[in-house]
Amino acid sequence: MKKKLALKKHREWKGKLEIVTRSPVENKEDLAIAYTPGVAEPCLEIQADESLAYDYTGKGNLVAVISDGTAVLGLGDIGPSASMPVLEGKCALFKKFADINAIPICIDSKEVDEIVSAITLISKSFGGINLEDISAPRCFEIEKRLVETLDIPVFHDDQHGTAIVTAAALINAVKLVKKDPSTIRIVISGAGAAGISIARLLINMGFGDILLCSSKGAIYEGAPDNNSEKEEIAKITNRSQRRGSLEDVIKGADVLIGVSMPKIVSEEMVASMADKPIVFGLANPIPEIMPEAAKRAGAAIVATGRSDYPNQVNNVLAFPGIFKGALLARAPGITEEMKVVAARAIAQVVSEEELSPDYILPDAFNEEVVKSVSRAIIKEAERNKS
Amino acid sequence: MKKKLALKKHREWKGKLEIVTRSPVENKEDLAIAYTPGVAEPCLEIQADESLAYDYTGKGNLVAVISDGTAVLGLGDIGPSASMPVLEGKCALFKKFADINAIPICIDSKEVDEIVSAITLISKSFGGINLEDISAPRCFEIEKRLVETLDIPVFHDDQHGTAIVTAAALINAVKLVKKDPSTIRIVISGAGAAGISIARLLINMGFGDILLCSSKGAIYEGAPDNNSEKEEIAKITNRSQRRGSLEDVIKGADVLIGVSMPKIVSEEMVASMADKPIVFGLANPIPEIMPEAAKRAGAAIVATGRSDYPNQVNNVLAFPGIFKGALLARAPGITEEMKVVAARAIAQVVSEEELSPDYILPDAFNEEVVKSVSRAIIKEAERNKS
Repeated sequence: MKKKLALKKHREWKGKLEIVTRSPVENKEDLAIAYTPGVAEPCLEIQADESLAYDYTGKGNLVAVISDGTAVLGLGDIGPSASMPVLEGKCALFKKFADINAIPICIDSKEVDEIVSAITLISKSFGGINLEDISAPRCFEIEKRLVETLDIPVFHDDQHGTAIVTAAALINAVKLVKKDPSTIRIVISGAGAAGISIARLLINMGFGDILLCSSKGAIYEGAPDNNSEKEEIAKITNRSQRRGSLEDVIKGADVLIGVSMPKIVSEEMVASMADKPIVFGLANPIPEIMPEAAKRAGAAIVATGRSDYPNQVNNVLAFPGIFKGALLARAPGITEEMKVVAARAIAQVVSEEELSPDYILPDAFNEEVVKSVSRAIIKEAERNKS
Repeated sequence: MKKKLALKKHREWKGKLEIVTRSPVENKEDLAIAYTPGVAEPCLEIQADESLAYDYTGKGNLVAVISDGTAVLGLGDIGPSASMPVLEGKCALFKKFADINAIPICIDSKEVDEIVSAITLISKSFGGINLEDISAPRCFEIEKRLVETLDIPVFHDDQHGTAIVTAAALINAVKLVKKDPSTIRIVISGAGAAGISIARLLINMGFGDILLCSSKGAIYEGAPDNNSEKEEIAKITNRSQRRGSLEDVIKGADVLIGVSMPKIVSEEMVASMADKPIVFGLANPIPEIMPEAAKRAGAAIVATGRSDYPNQVNNVLAFPGIFKGALLARAPGITEEMKVVAARAIAQVVSEEELSPDYILPDAFNEEVVKSVSRAIIKEAERNKS
């Protein structure tokens, strides 16, 4: 039913986005201002000072949402054209939640060099770049190289958006169970783009010992099958060099964050965790453990990626405000510290009085979120400038 | 005054385009259709059959307007960022005249290989590509390679748009002076992108002897300084192998088409032409000869690129209808014959009764033009399919 409706609606829309003109083009006088000969004036101004593109064009409020279609939703590598409905949807969210103009661009290549080159060559058209649904480990190198080269914000939402909202949820969850963030033990199931990004952000925020666990078990320094990204993260995680399966390492942990596979966490595993365990099962649409089962097994606080349960870890809480703030501040990039302040800003939208096990994150449609996050980003950007 | 107003308005607009959403995104139910999980359905459909991108995304009504900023208006090589006000303006025209969504993209490279690669890699995002303000001779190779590779329409408007509207004007002008198109002698001043494209189209339409003249004089086969593009065009023009300056070769010509430099044609030169000469001075904003001077010297029909004189050769008469028709027909490209039928369609919007020396082209805002041109393109596209 829902599936048929989604197809029917997409067919009716024939694209979820439309361009409208902000400048009148109704008669020859209008054209003489918005087009030739008048348009030559802003062109010449920008030629003399490229930063004026922010004043005379839409660059300052324009984000490109770019994917190669290799890791689309839970569907995997479905190709560039098939990623377009998602990219259009993401652009619609940019508009709805932050009034940012965003355009979808799919790239017909899986080669890191080609992808980086294409994005670099078109980058002057935009004020920011949101990378989307690019598979690991390619997404790390693509983002890293673009961040190094470009002077506009580049943000891989599947990594950092998820990490920021997860961190926001964790701030509030830990507060509720009255544990010390710096001493808790956190297990992350899933060592892909999201898992590694969550681990990095939580470390930067001062959370306690973090252990990443892939399908092959705990990630530790010097493991024979570590790629460079895993070896790097192993150096700063798993302090006590634990080894073993998820079932082994989850024992006694305070927090489980799942960004891996549906239903790989049993009630027994949750029962084996420390007192008042926090369980985030973020696999979509079916989490690592269903909320009912996690609670039966004693979980104090549960979050998922789903909108039909409380505490939805939804990227829409992060990326609109982050880009809004970065664009308004004309920040040349999204720093690690910006991710930290964004997570804190999201957490703080839920007041002490409102905070409860079923309300650790603001609702996706809470308009305070984008304001709060963008303010925090602007403040951090200003601090970097001074 | 006008210059200040153009700057002021561009500052107010901060971009001439804005994205709006066609799909509602007001609540969680909306998101579940337009975004996850509903969006997975159109993704999977497109993965199975890529042509369904035309049904489930905006591709079928989306054109990228792309420049490298090397030949912007009459300003020359002002760079990619400085070309953006023009590209945005062009996109506004696409919307106004054909209700086509168009997005501006500037490319930060002057290397043909890089430009072709970047455009190819992002091309699946669009239903068509309008190349704009790319300098000759690079524009020829860029367009040629894209046309060969891509299965969507690619159209360099500075070449073909100008050629089509010039041809439309010439059809009606020749009709008025009652000469035989197949025997008239035409001199084109300017052997850049526009001049060569005009020559090719006029030849395809059966116009008589055509001679191209650069700043170094008449172009003829085997001239020592011919590049490959000029040598190629020399083979099909200048049948009588004339040599000499513009002043020499214009003598006795029936038609002068200027796409070169302001004021390089004198009254004496017009006076030396054949009886009832046709003079199109299309250099912008100052034509090869001002209309008053051309008429004093005996010109029967005069056209310019300016909106403040009659008979404005304005690309907006061509590209909206051409893309509209090509997109509706899902044509894989713009053929030579499509350019011919487009020129004829534009010319025919001016009826026999209306036709006069000061009215050889329809007004830019005449809504019949886009209808007439798109119909002609669709008919031609259907003919190609069968």
